[in-house]
Amino acid sequence: MLYLIGLGLSSCEDITVRGLKVVQRAKRVYLEAYTSILMTASVEDLTAFYGREVIVADRELVESGSDEILAGADKDDIAFLVVGDPFGATTHTDLQLRARELGIAVEAIHNASVMNAVGACGLQLYNFGQAVSLVFFTDSWKPDSYYDRVRENRAIGLHTLVLLDIKVKEQSFENMARGRLIYEPPRYMSIETAASQMLETAATRADGTYTGDTPCVAVSRLGSPTQKFVAATLAELAEIESGEPLHSLVMLGSRVHELELEFLLEFALDRERFRTAVLAETSAAAAAAKAAAEAAAEVASDSD
Amino acid sequence: MLYLIGLGLSSCEDITVRGLKVVQRAKRVYLEAYTSILMTASVEDLTAFYGREVIVADRELVESGSDEILAGADKDDIAFLVVGDPFGATTHTDLQLRARELGIAVEAIHNASVMNAVGACGLQLYNFGQAVSLVFFTDSWKPDSYYDRVRENRAIGLHTLVLLDIKVKEQSFENMARGRLIYEPPRYMSIETAASQMLETAATRADGTYTGDTPCVAVSRLGSPTQKFVAATLAELAEIESGEPLHSLVMLGSRVHELELEFLLEFALDRERFRTAVLAETSAAAAAAKAAAEAAAEVASDSD
Repeated sequence: MLYLIGLGLSSCEDITVRGLKVVQRAKRVYLEAYTSILMTASVEDLTAFYGREVIVADRELVESGSDEILAGADKDDIAFLVVGDPFGATTHTDLQLRARELGIAVEAIHNASVMNAVGACGLQLYNFGQAVSLVFFTDSWKPDSYYDRVRENRAIGLHTLVLLDIKVKEQSFENMARGRLIYEPPRYMSIETAASQMLETAATRADGTYTGDTPCVAVSRLGSPTQKFVAATLAELAEIESGEPLHSLVMLGSRVHELELEFLLEFALDRERFRTAVLAETSAAAAAAKAAAEAAAEVASDSD
Repeated sequence: MLYLIGLGLSSCEDITVRGLKVVQRAKRVYLEAYTSILMTASVEDLTAFYGREVIVADRELVESGSDEILAGADKDDIAFLVVGDPFGATTHTDLQLRARELGIAVEAIHNASVMNAVGACGLQLYNFGQAVSLVFFTDSWKPDSYYDRVRENRAIGLHTLVLLDIKVKEQSFENMARGRLIYEPPRYMSIETAASQMLETAATRADGTYTGDTPCVAVSRLGSPTQKFVAATLAELAEIESGEPLHSLVMLGSRVHELELEFLLEFALDRERFRTAVLAETSAAAAAAKAAAEAAAEVASDSD
């Protein structure tokens, strides 16, 4: 059996009791270590906590070496550990399809991921649209298809969870060109970088999807002892110091309930500015709804 | 300290190691027992597993008796257990706001909820729009605002997670009118009821948002040992027997990757019909995108 086991967000102890039992009896234990990190536990911490050897699986091993991971899984239990939930951001569909081809049963042991834990900031998960990913811009490469997804969400009043880039085990162009297996230090996108990049895209696209005044929530170290939320406008977030990773960002839509606003104000950078920004969102949405209703009424009276 | 602790989806052992430690040392342990249930663990099972008394908190206690729950939480640890993640469907914002007023610190211990674990069906969570709730229709009350949300999601190609109604500790009208504290047996909406109700709404609204041919995935007992997925059209799902609760339903949008389709076909009720239904979605979306691009090009040439 192949077990896909979610580790949750922060510490060794965020694994479920059921997940821990499987890890302790599995033949081999792999840790998927390239799409995210556990914030307060190193591989050594996990090894000590489990009392088991943990094999770090990089992208190469997972994407090209799945048969190595699956070897013997028809007879023995193999544990494949994933930060968050096994299906949080990446579904590992190819690993599962390969297991299926080989006749190996697969079971998932779920856990929290940022996709559901973000509800801790006080916004209802019901009012989130599609999540988007924001990657590090370079001088020549500024991928902005995320912007279209944000526009779709905002057009119908929904919040957007923006997941921020993580670069682990990346090579520089020079080292890659020379075939040198030297890797850059890991990089985790900060809130201020994310907000600056989003403002840059807004300036390029210039269609008013969002502006520096759009209300957002900075979500830092979610689920860890130093978890922090900051409610502020996008322009304000471009100037903060968000500190240690991991971070993500929520851009609010117009569907904000009074109780939710009250909750957010508690960690607002500037309460009055944030309240004004949220009320601007909600009143613009109300005005648009009124205009649409009037236009519909006009069409109806025209067709009389 | 008030701890909001997620229990995950199915068994006693789905709690995290950290959550279990808090439960075992807390002064009092409450279980929120009206928005969901643990599928394979009763209150007695939890009591035995924790070695602690578990106080069942119904809606009345949580919504009107928060001071009773919070009593002494400034000095002692109080555990408030929630099936899934503490912020899955209900954020318990009022309980948290009340704690804040009383100067009581609140900490969440996250876990899996249907909102993220649904990724196990093979569809990318990125391509889900807003989740909706479907409540039991009666002869005189058929709330269908969910339909507008589904239309919004489908207009931009996104999947919709449909959460199905749970009725726990409901009184009949007669018993309520007579003030008799007699409760009906709990009811959990099945896939077939959900699909039938959704077809009924589609017939009433009659704007073609979705039809009986729209591809869906029935998600039964997610995260439990008897978890089951069935990929089928909405009309087919209205005829299945989905069995023991809990259930939810995913209505597909047009953004389906080839690998995802391959994954879904493994549990399709009728593989060819399902493939045809998905391809109809994706090709309709491609045609609409082409038409929009042509219209935009025409506008551009008109303005030359």
